[in-house]
This record gives sequence, structure tokens and C-alpha cells, in this order.
Amino acid sequence: MSKKIIGKNVKNISFQQALDLIKSLEIESVGKEKVFINKSVGRILSNDIHSKESSPKFDTSNMDGYALNYDDLEILKKDGLIIDSINKAGNTYNCTIKKGFCIKTFTGSKMPQNADSLAIVEQVEVKENRIFLKKNENIEKNQHIRKKGENYTKDLPLFKKGKLITPLDIGLLAQNSNVMIEVFRKIRVRILSSGDEIIELGERSESENFIYSSNNHILSAIAKSLGCEVSLYGILKDDKEVIKNEIQNALNDNDIVITTGGMSKGDFDFTKEIVGNLGESIFSGVKIKPGKVISYIKCKNNKHIFALPGNPLSSVISFMLFGRLIIQKLLSLEPNITFYKAKLLNPIVKKDIRTEFITSKVFLENGIFAIEPQSKSSYMIDNLNGALAVVDRDFEINELIDIILFDDLLKIN
Amino acid sequence: MSKKIIGKNVKNISFQQALDLIKSLEIESVGKEKVFINKSVGRILSNDIHSKESSPKFDTSNMDGYALNYDDLEILKKDGLIIDSINKAGNTYNCTIKKGFCIKTFTGSKMPQNADSLAIVEQVEVKENRIFLKKNENIEKNQHIRKKGENYTKDLPLFKKGKLITPLDIGLLAQNSNVMIEVFRKIRVRILSSGDEIIELGERSESENFIYSSNNHILSAIAKSLGCEVSLYGILKDDKEVIKNEIQNALNDNDIVITTGGMSKGDFDFTKEIVGNLGESIFSGVKIKPGKVISYIKCKNNKHIFALPGNPLSSVISFMLFGRLIIQKLLSLEPNITFYKAKLLNPIVKKDIRTEFITSKVFLENGIFAIEPQSKSSYMIDNLNGALAVVDRDFEINELIDIILFDDLLKIN
Repeated sequence: MSKKIIGKNVKNISFQQALDLIKSLEIESVGKEKVFINKSVGRILSNDIHSKESSPKFDTSNMDGYALNYDDLEILKKDGLIIDSINKAGNTYNCTIKKGFCIKTFTGSKMPQNADSLAIVEQVEVKENRIFLKKNENIEKNQHIRKKGENYTKDLPLFKKGKLITPLDIGLLAQNSNVMIEVFRKIRVRILSSGDEIIELGERSESENFIYSSNNHILSAIAKSLGCEVSLYGILKDDKEVIKNEIQNALNDNDIVITTGGMSKGDFDFTKEIVGNLGESIFSGVKIKPGKVISYIKCKNNKHIFALPGNPLSSVISFMLFGRLIIQKLLSLEPNITFYKAKLLNPIVKKDIRTEFITSKVFLENGIFAIEPQSKSSYMIDNLNGALAVVDRDFEINELIDIILFDDLLKIN
Repeated sequence: MSKKIIGKNVKNISFQQALDLIKSLEIESVGKEKVFINKSVGRILSNDIHSKESSPKFDTSNMDGYALNYDDLEILKKDGLIIDSINKAGNTYNCTIKKGFCIKTFTGSKMPQNADSLAIVEQVEVKENRIFLKKNENIEKNQHIRKKGENYTKDLPLFKKGKLITPLDIGLLAQNSNVMIEVFRKIRVRILSSGDEIIELGERSESENFIYSSNNHILSAIAKSLGCEVSLYGILKDDKEVIKNEIQNALNDNDIVITTGGMSKGDFDFTKEIVGNLGESIFSGVKIKPGKVISYIKCKNNKHIFALPGNPLSSVISFMLFGRLIIQKLLSLEPNITFYKAKLLNPIVKKDIRTEFITSKVFLENGIFAIEPQSKSSYMIDNLNGALAVVDRDFEINELIDIILFDDLLKIN
């Protein structure tokens, strides 16, 4: 589908080529750490987790009733079975059933050793400490018992290395007594922004000719939602040595350094020259709109620089498309972007030779995605909800088009 | 589609009836608080947020170039325009263009007062402090300028009350100088679990006839992913007064109290009787599988009790289906469950008169959902990834079926 890019430091490649290039890179995963189970949601397992014992770990009663031996079925029907004892859940002893007897047994109780069936309370009548099977009731062998190992047996891989831990995994981790969970450590991201017209939240300016910084905060929120630890540091000054030092300091302490802004014609080449000397430029410029001027530099010691455009929407989209894939690689995940098909509610006329990503409202029509593309400039960061339509040609109304959900771009896997 | 349930304290109602019943309840939203912008992701706005100024707040240069007056186009072509000065982004002064002059202007700079166009650097040649239009280049009026208020004007509602704040909203909040954000406070949830065979993580038992508690931890993780503050407290003892006191104490400090387990025939009626006296039983029993024995009790002072089954999967699914809707109501959100259509890769034979929720693997076939239903008992909480298929009849292979994504059930909106 796309031409294979062999060399590095390629310029102005296509979207697909940039994806292929990143996927082909060899990137080592970061180190491991142990976290408590209650802090493990959203983390990535760095090791397989095996079952420590079978589940259930013993034959378990599934209901409240009377444990019995199926061979005594005729006695149950005719003379009744004598209630020998009561076998509460969590009992510390192991009981055995004698011929002609049953043992009252509760949901979650370990079944008596030679009991193979459970008559539930609704099925029997109790008279003078004996149970009798009610009319129209029948007992099937093994009924209402969960067999030892029915869910899983000992030493089975319950979770694989590289699994994202979700809230729904916590039950099984707890059941298996995994209190401390081995995961990849968090990726450390430093965001360096710039722009002479930009001031930080809470700062004041002599004139009104400024705007509040937004790139650093939105990129920080995105990186955090991808599970990263983020530190903010601005503002890149107009001094080559200062810029170089600030980026190098950031590289010492972080896995990924993001620069944004200061990307005007002259300044951009300036930053580009500096970051180009700090590592291997993997690509510089991708034929996407917005986000064209993104550069990705791979530095020694598994450090990575993304030099992003200054326009808010451009920096956000280019980082979510490519930066996210590098974060996945650093966590030993398969880099991936999920494309869904959606029905177009408006036609699209492509305006650029680049692959356009158009922010779109998403609807469900009888359970199927439908989208309404919005017309936005690359400066507009309002209402980023829904999806990006991937536009590589003109589309007619009702055609199916590839979309990428923002929700997916904000998830690590 | 479903019969309207008028009364309360209804028993064994259908899935749709339970949904309708919850939707029809009048539930007041909880109080508000202010959080810092960097802690606002995942929270729900308790007020509209209006734009404090226009965006851009002044006519802004979109590129690096030369600001000029379109009336001087012929001078630009013939004699060239004299470069008057340099207008850096963030300049604290306001400049004006004289006839026959231009002003060097950068991306993000405020445009000079009477300039209406920008010749970008690539379009002109500079000779002796004058710029000349290159051959084959043309200037259009207003080109490369973002007009004041082009994105939005002052006092526009940027965000509506009830909006879930996502990472992608943070840019606009920062740009609009919203440092402290007014949101609904977190819902406080207490989880009380029980079961004589259950011990807590790290605890030891005299015998091997125990299992580690998992319900409380998985429900805690789910409630947290829905934005709640969770406190755990077990174990409900076998004493009516103790149970009553523990639930009442929990109600004092929390908005929602969840009980799980201890739901065996006798015990269940016991708990049911207690919680029934603590408030108004909205429903008790829903014809769903798993999760049938769920009870929902609405207490005074906007407190809510969910008495869940003890089976892990049953408690998880019934809480995600119904508890999540109450959390949404407490945050003034419209209660909703999103149903997608998916292609069935296996046929389904319905085994129960109840609506069955079958955990299923989800695939994308050319961008469209396809599912593979799993056969699971209500005790199996492994591999809860993917979706729940909503089974209300038999289905043939390749039929479209309603599914609910686990991801959606773990999100507040």
C-alpha cells in the first residue's frame, strides 16, 4: 500500500510512511517497578502473571442447600437423608458424608469430601432433621457444584506481559493474591514551549498583545492520559545556547522531550538544527494537515524528541498520532492506531495534497458510527470531542470513511 | 417498547423496566467544588464557562512575512514597499503602516493597525530594505490573517454545565485563563463486602478453605474509574444490629453504599430486610443474567444503597449497568448506556428467560465491530475485556446484535 522507506532522516513523508517508519524502529522498553494493586489500573504488566492456585481451589457449593452423595438419591426420595452437621462457608475443618446422611452446605462452602451433588433448599422438605426430595424435583449428579479448577488451574498464565491493567482486571489480581504488581515504570515527558506572545497562566503582561499558553497544558493532559509523568518547563528563549542547554537538561531527566512553538520560519530551522545535532532525525515533516512540520529525533540512551508545530491543534494532533506510538513502544506495546468506519453525513472536498485529519462530531445511528466533519482552522482547539476523519480523497455523502476516535488517541492501548 | 412501571418497590422487573425506572427518578445533583485545571480531567462542569475575550483577541499574523495595506499592492509590484520596522510577536506597542511601507511581522504577532494583508516571506524578495513581489506570486486581501474573534467572540458559552472535562478541553480552558474550575464534587462510595469464606489481601487463615476477597477491590476500581471517591470496609458480620449499624454509618459519610455477598438465601433476606427499612426500595430483583438479585434502595438525604449479589461477575455487571446510572444522575448527567451493533461470529442460543449479558471478545472487521461470545459462569472474572452482548433472543451467525463496550461502562459519560 505504501512505499517502504529504508533510510532515516527522511523529509516530508506520507502519513503511512511515517507510521511504517515508527513501527520498524527498534526501541527498548523502559525499566520496571512494583506498584500496589490499587494503583495498578492503567499500567502495563512487565511480566506474565500465573495463577497461584486453582479457581475454585476446592469443589465449591454454588447455592445454599444440602451436600449429598448421588448414590443416596433413592434414600433421599424414600426415607430421607439425616442432616449430619452444618458446613458453613469458611469452615476450618474438612467434613465427610456418611451413608444415609447429608450436610447442610452454603454458597461458597467447600463441599464435603465425598459429596458429589447439592440439593438446594428449594428442592427439599425438612422433617425431624431429615430432608426429603419434593415432588416434581429431580437431582442431577454434580449439580450446583463448581468443580476445583473449573475457572482456571494452578500455574496458568492469567495475564500476559504487555497487558494494560483495567479496573475489571483488579478482581482476578486480588483473587490471585497479587498485592504488588510488576509494571513498566511511567514514561517521563518534559514539555518545553515557546512563543514571545505567550504568557503562563496567572502571569500578567504590560500590554494586551499576548495570549495564555495552552499547548503545554493540553499536551500535558494528553501525555498524562497516556500514563506518562509530565513536567512542564517553558519558555524557550531566543538564544541558541540556552535552547540547547534546556533541551539537553530535559533529555537527562526524561524519556521524551516535546518542544512546541518558536517554529516560525527562521526560528524553526534554529530549533531543528539544535535537535538534529542531539540525535538521529528519524523524520522531519509529514504530509499531514494539520501537523506538517513535526520532527522526530531519536537520541542516545533511549531518549526521544518531538519538535511540534506551534499551532495548538497541529501540535496536539501530530503528537497524538506519532508520539503515542513511541510511548507504546517504550512500554513494549505493539504501536497501533484503531480505525473505525463511519457513515459520512456531509460530503468532503479534499483541499490539500496532504492527508487531512478533520475533527468531526460522532453520532450513533442504530448502533453504527456516523460523522459530521467540522470546518476548523489549525488554531481552533474548541470542541475536540468525537473523532478525526482521515481524508485522503473526496468523499460523497453516506460514503464510509475511516475515523480515529479521540478517546482511542487518549488511551495507551 | 416496554411497559411503564408506575409504582415503586417493584420486584423482578425487566432490564428495560429497571432502566426506565431509574431514568424517571428525581435525583438531586451533589454539591460543587473548585479544582485546579490540572486536576480537572474526568470531572463534570457544574457551571457554564464563557469566553473572557475574543479568540484571537486581535487580528493576528498566521505566518512570518510582511504586513501591508492591500491598497499598496501596485507599489509592492513596481517600486517595492519600504520595511518600516519589525513587529515581533508579543510586542507591547501598537504599530501603524504608512503609505508605501510595510512592517516585518511574525507568526502570532498582532497585525499593525491598518494592515489588512500579509505577504509571506516566500512571496517576496528583499532588496535595499524594500520588498518586491516575486513573479507568479499574488496577494489576496486578508491573506494569512486570523481575524479577531474568528474562533469565538467574548461571552460565548465555551463549555456547558454537565460537560465531562477531557484532556483535549484543557487547551481551551488554559487559553481562556480558567485556572480554577467549578465542578461537581466527587461521589463518595463505601463498599461493604461479606462472606465467611472470604479473607482480605494479606490476611491468613487457619485452614485452606478460604478465598481472597475480590468483589470489594474490583468494585472499588470500577467506581474510581467512574470518578468516585471510594472507601472500603468489610466484613458484614452475622449480626442484624451490627449490619444495620455499619450500613447506617456508611450512609452518614457516603452518597452510595454498596453491599455484596452474604446474599445466600437466609442471609440475603436478612440484609434485604435491613436495607429495606433504611429507605425506599426502588426495585428488588431484575430479570437479567447475571445479576438477578440486585436491589436498589433510595434513602433520605440523597443517599443510595445497592445490595449486590455475591458472585463477582454478577455484582460487577449489575453495578456497572445500574449503579453507573445513579452516579450519572448525582452529577446532573443524562443517564445513558451506549449500545453498538456488532456482527456475531458465533450463533447464540438463549438459555434463560432473563436478558442475558454475555462477555464477548471484540474484533474490528474492516472498521466494523464483530464479537465472539464467551461461555462463562457468573463466577469467572478473568478476561473481562471487550463487550457484553445483550441477548434477548436466539441469534444466528452473522446477525447484528446489540453490544455494550466495557470501556463505556467504565466511563462516566
